Amino acid sequence: MKIALGQINVLAGQPSKNVNKMLEMIDQAKKEKADLIVFPEMAVSGYMLSDKWMDPAFCETLISYNEILKNASEGIGIIWGNVGTFENIKGRDGRKSRCNCAYFAFDKQWVKKENQKYPGLYVKYLNPDYRVFDDSRYFYSALELSRRLHENEDFLTSCFLFEKDGQTVRIGLEICEDLWSNDYNFDPTKHYLNQKADMIVNISSSPWTMNKEIGREKQIMRHVKNNGAIVPLIYVNACGMQNNGKSVCIFDGDSSVYDEKGERKISCNDAFQEECKIVDIHESSLAEKCETKLLKALLCAISEFDKQVFQSRFKWIIGLSGGLDSSVNAALLTMALGKERIIGLNMATRYNSSTTIDNAHQLAEALGIECRDGIIQRLVEEQITCLKQYTEKEISEFAIENIQARIRGSILSGISQVENAVVINNGNKVEAAFGYATLYGDTIGCLAPLQDVTKVVLFDLARSINEVNGKEIIPQNLLPNVKENDIEWIMPPSAELKNNQLDPMKWFYHDELVRMLTEYPGYEIEKLMEDYLSGEIYNQPIGRWIKWYHLDEPQAFIDDLEWVLSKFEQGVFKRIQSAPIVMVSRGAFGNDFRENQCCYEKTNLYLKLKDEILSHAHK
Amino acid sequence: MKIALGQINVLAGQPSKNVNKMLEMIDQAKKEKADLIVFPEMAVSGYMLSDKWMDPAFCETLISYNEILKNASEGIGIIWGNVGTFENIKGRDGRKSRCNCAYFAFDKQWVKKENQKYPGLYVKYLNPDYRVFDDSRYFYSALELSRRLHENEDFLTSCFLFEKDGQTVRIGLEICEDLWSNDYNFDPTKHYLNQKADMIVNISSSPWTMNKEIGREKQIMRHVKNNGAIVPLIYVNACGMQNNGKSVCIFDGDSSVYDEKGERKISCNDAFQEECKIVDIHESSLAEKCETKLLKALLCAISEFDKQVFQSRFKWIIGLSGGLDSSVNAALLTMALGKERIIGLNMATRYNSSTTIDNAHQLAEALGIECRDGIIQRLVEEQITCLKQYTEKEISEFAIENIQARIRGSILSGISQVENAVVINNGNKVEAAFGYATLYGDTIGCLAPLQDVTKVVLFDLARSINEVNGKEIIPQNLLPNVKENDIEWIMPPSAELKNNQLDPMKWFYHDELVRMLTEYPGYEIEKLMEDYLSGEIYNQPIGRWIKWYHLDEPQAFIDDLEWVLSKFEQGVFKRIQSAPIVMVSRGAFGNDFRENQCCYEKTNLYLKLKDEILSHAHK
Repeated sequence: MKIALGQINVLAGQPSKNVNKMLEMIDQAKKEKADLIVFPEMAVSGYMLSDKWMDPAFCETLISYNEILKNASEGIGIIWGNVGTFENIKGRDGRKSRCNCAYFAFDKQWVKKENQKYPGLYVKYLNPDYRVFDDSRYFYSALELSRRLHENEDFLTSCFLFEKDGQTVRIGLEICEDLWSNDYNFDPTKHYLNQKADMIVNISSSPWTMNKEIGREKQIMRHVKNNGAIVPLIYVNACGMQNNGKSVCIFDGDSSVYDEKGERKISCNDAFQEECKIVDIHESSLAEKCETKLLKALLCAISEFDKQVFQSRFKWIIGLSGGLDSSVNAALLTMALGKERIIGLNMATRYNSSTTIDNAHQLAEALGIECRDGIIQRLVEEQITCLKQYTEKEISEFAIENIQARIRGSILSGISQVENAVVINNGNKVEAAFGYATLYGDTIGCLAPLQDVTKVVLFDLARSINEVNGKEIIPQNLLPNVKENDIEWIMPPSAELKNNQLDPMKWFYHDELVRMLTEYPGYEIEKLMEDYLSGEIYNQPIGRWIKWYHLDEPQAFIDDLEWVLSKFEQGVFKRIQSAPIVMVSRGAFGNDFRENQCCYEKTNLYLKLKDEILSHAHK
Repeated sequence: MKIALGQINVLAGQPSKNVNKMLEMIDQAKKEKADLIVFPEMAVSGYMLSDKWMDPAFCETLISYNEILKNASEGIGIIWGNVGTFENIKGRDGRKSRCNCAYFAFDKQWVKKENQKYPGLYVKYLNPDYRVFDDSRYFYSALELSRRLHENEDFLTSCFLFEKDGQTVRIGLEICEDLWSNDYNFDPTKHYLNQKADMIVNISSSPWTMNKEIGREKQIMRHVKNNGAIVPLIYVNACGMQNNGKSVCIFDGDSSVYDEKGERKISCNDAFQEECKIVDIHESSLAEKCETKLLKALLCAISEFDKQVFQSRFKWIIGLSGGLDSSVNAALLTMALGKERIIGLNMATRYNSSTTIDNAHQLAEALGIECRDGIIQRLVEEQITCLKQYTEKEISEFAIENIQARIRGSILSGISQVENAVVINNGNKVEAAFGYATLYGDTIGCLAPLQDVTKVVLFDLARSINEVNGKEIIPQNLLPNVKENDIEWIMPPSAELKNNQLDPMKWFYHDELVRMLTEYPGYEIEKLMEDYLSGEIYNQPIGRWIKWYHLDEPQAFIDDLEWVLSKFEQGVFKRIQSAPIVMVSRGAFGNDFRENQCCYEKTNLYLKLKDEILSHAHK
């Protein structure tokens, strides 16, 4: 059988564009004599629509496209994802029910199923409600439907009978999370395997995060192990970018066909690019794996955000300090959008070293972008004068640091309006975690590509950028030289808001703490403390940094940990108001890792472990 | 039977404080010979913990308090809400399962149930997943548990057998949403009524929104109607404030006892105040209803936010423009926190009229708060000079308006740091909806008490403030005089960012559009268009404003509507980054009404109705 993997760039909220693209691919597939074409989950609508799902007229419009797709199925089977409704079942909002559905049409008919029920229709069984996923907020699962329709739980897992050219292929259809069934108590894949389906088709809109691929292969191998073998599995994922407000998600595609042993035999590109790959499912045809995937991911996020949210109407403004984060961001912007659309601003005060200013210029030159220089010192002084009208208190050095940062924010905002541009946010994840940023100063921007990237990962990203470009774009002097038990810096990270200021982070070690605190399901600090107490921590990669930072002294370890935890908790109010963040980890601030403002009491276990650790401290 | 309604102010994330308060009330109830004391849903933990729920050590700590409460039950039955776990069932995060539970202890034992299962324990059946509620994200419902434990669905709705003083009272226990079962297909209340329970106890953490009371009474009357009669229903709700980051929710208490006919016989205060009311459930004891409830709600939000998030350590800074919104906010702050902790700043440019400056002074005097005056004109000019270093383009009047607003934001931020204070946000809901605010300018602040209040509601709120204070706090000249078909203004709302600038909103009419767009389940614009087309709209309260604004001319109606919709859509990027909002409607921006950045295509129905309406336009 010849199958077309329709890995489309799904544009959220733009059904006519999505369906046009699908129709084009259907035409192409017909020309190449494919028997079946498969599109991703929610290919018509987009997956991340936030509360727009509650708009009944919008949902009806989405559903109206099903007829168009069905009518395009002459001579070819088409599988696609879209919202669906069960007319007689009310949703929890009192309006028509909504479900996350897969549709299957052939020869202008809905494809029949073995149990005769609901031809052409499958409904997602497993609704994820964690991280960025809110399926239960918007959709009834097939399990919920089975209760409301008084049907057996498995009423929608009957094989589709795809009859073409005198042959009948029995296809099990499922949607995304249905494959990741290990923490649920219903397993659609197993139901299909028990029925000895000829193949299983999984349609997905699965956002990419670092190391995601490993997760998927694990799930598939789990099914292979549990069932001895599986049947050919066709996995079609969306590519592109969708967002839910605070979190900007990217989809890598990476649509694939797996064989009975769970081995990948066919794949589309995993480089976030649209592709219609037409294959014989028993052949082997692996696309080259994407190198420097994080880099590609961020480029996709920027270019798609620019297109989808701004229709590429605006220039992009970036504050160039000469530091690492802004350098990496400038490179990303330039690679994603071209040098003509980027304007760099260097906004110096008396605290900025000539080295960083030189770095900024060197970077701009390497990228071929404009770098406009200016001095904000006078404005800082005028701001202080203005403030003094309102207070007799002394304006501390710390207050002046924040004033500088806010002035930069306001210059960037002002210039962006004059130049018809938007501002990019340069913060990284460790800064965000510690609230090491000035609200309305360096937290501003329309998009924060690096705010889910810890500094340590940023170092690698910087190196990738230089490698891909074949030259030193990111100045080498910004990167640490990591030896076995040592870190050498030419220019350690600094906000340059006062003389000789160095960032207070213990890089490499704090990066890992931030990961532990945020990565789903998060909160592993007590585990860290237990490992510290038992000494097990020195067998782990961070063990060497604990020594390097002299945290093997228990009091220092606890003092540092409490500093981190309090910064982390205090930083929430800044994160609530910060720019939308590109999600690349399994715990991005925003709508992935969701936080509130609370003074959480310490846990019993924490207090116990702290006591035990301190009992080993030098007296 | 004598029952204590333990309407406590639940502090999210602070179990030791909550339990101490509960123990105090238990002591009091014992002294007054109560048989039973009832506390709200999640009384130990708080209800809104965001992803902190995923912290296993924190959940274990919460659960550890159950023993303490159980041991306090000598001689008195205690019902309380807390998180619970089923040891052998994994949650979707792969860790221990979590449930939203009610516990019932007496004489240091768990109270037995008629079906002998799970003594002392009830699990919430109906998990709300709409608006600010994310129950399925964090908890398994009892329905989900029944599937995982292979139990009948109703396995947890067996009556508790409360045996005291030789009598057995059969009590049905349920949690919050369990009562609001109309859109679910399981009804715990009905199960208890079928078993002829002697009484039902509902423990809640139900945030207040305008007209909420009516909703609850309707639900109860629905049960009465469906079942002929009910049994005495004891409803205990939390009071105070909890937040989930962007949305700040307030809880009014209003704990009540309803009789068999659904009539309210006993009630605690609904004024957001803690109370332990000890009553005989067959007597009648109604607390006085809270007048000016919205005002009380906002005062509660401010004072609790100040206490819980900031431990009352900071002063509060407010920009006083002399306009309505800042005047109302200043009054709220002063009423909630006392005049000593408020600092008003008037930040004038050449566009500010002497009337508004006088208004600001008059207000500050009426409230007894400090108002510090200053001029920001020079700083505006210096900012323009600084910007000109970076651009050769002309700096437009519009750009200068935003510069003024951002300078005010930065002065407020600067002064707040120097004065050890936080800044309040003055925006209202219509401004937020239309993005009629400068990002990082007037969108800043730690809390936005008015951002879920439309201007029309603000007028009433202002009048309440004057009434409660028995004098003109909010200058009368800021309020419109609404006659039958006419609105008279002395000073129509203006941002005063240029000369003779008036806000572009069509007050009263646009307020209603914003309500339609946001109030759960939202999106009723096509309904409005249908009513416009049929003329039905002129039978509705907004009909007169459609005429008043000359929108009875179809082209004008459509032009205005499209302007509103495009402003609404464009405003999202500002709302994503704005301050936390006190939720008082059924559709507050933030984590109640959840939005993303998308270019949504228009619906088929919208396009059809638009065509039809325009076909009636003057040619």
